[in-house]
Amino acid sequence: MIVRDFNKIIENEKDRVVSDANWTSVRMLLADDKMGFSFHLTFLDTGSEHVFEYKNHFESVYCMKGKGSITDHATGETHEIHPGVMYALNEHDRHTLRAEEELVMACVFNPPVTGTEVHREDGSYAPAEELA
Amino acid sequence: MIVRDFNKIIENEKDRVVSDANWTSVRMLLADDKMGFSFHLTFLDTGSEHVFEYKNHFESVYCMKGKGSITDHATGETHEIHPGVMYALNEHDRHTLRAEEELVMACVFNPPVTGTEVHREDGSYAPAEELA
Repeated sequence: MIVRDFNKIIENEKDRVVSDANWTSVRMLLADDKMGFSFHLTFLDTGSEHVFEYKNHFESVYCMKGKGSITDHATGETHEIHPGVMYALNEHDRHTLRAEEELVMACVFNPPVTGTEVHREDGSYAPAEELA
Repeated sequence: MIVRDFNKIIENEKDRVVSDANWTSVRMLLADDKMGFSFHLTFLDTGSEHVFEYKNHFESVYCMKGKGSITDHATGETHEIHPGVMYALNEHDRHTLRAEEELVMACVFNPPVTGTEVHREDGSYAPAEELA
């Protein structure tokens, strides 16, 4: 059994806290935990906008706190995001995510993120085999 | 892209809301969403105690709200649960979960739950192939 505490991680395990342009992600579970998925808590700064496209991963994102919206590039549809809303990128959907207020999101990735990925220019993470 | 709202599900999609002895689980993502995992929000009643052992699944559980504890039967160790604590049953660990205050947990199952499982006497869910 693995037991981890978000509050201890942000104090003592800085290698699990990843930041990029206007977002921070705390990696609670990663590939080497061998659960078959990874689990992150991600914070998107107020006023920020992000274009992502996880070509090599499925991702689900549950809003715990904050306010924003997501636009699906394929359909042009925009959905409001507030606590209780979840989106799942079951088609590796290219999307724009906007945080009107800081968004706190519980994210699951399949396959699991290793922790060493960075977003590439196209908004994707490299598949794990390219990181080895 | 799948978009679902917890608040609408509990009003309008009762088939996604599953209750058993002193717990209720709202299934935000299930096997037929084909994400490779399922994602549930689970509420454990104040004062309740549960013995689970997911012999056929990996499960991670992140505490969003409440107070309680988990005991790992293999080691006898007990860990406090409060917001920010996550446990992951990477060894299909048999465990006792106690809610001193109502626990609100974000749960991920791999393989994904189909939605038709019930806990068996041993605290497990049947593997998906037995449910077909």
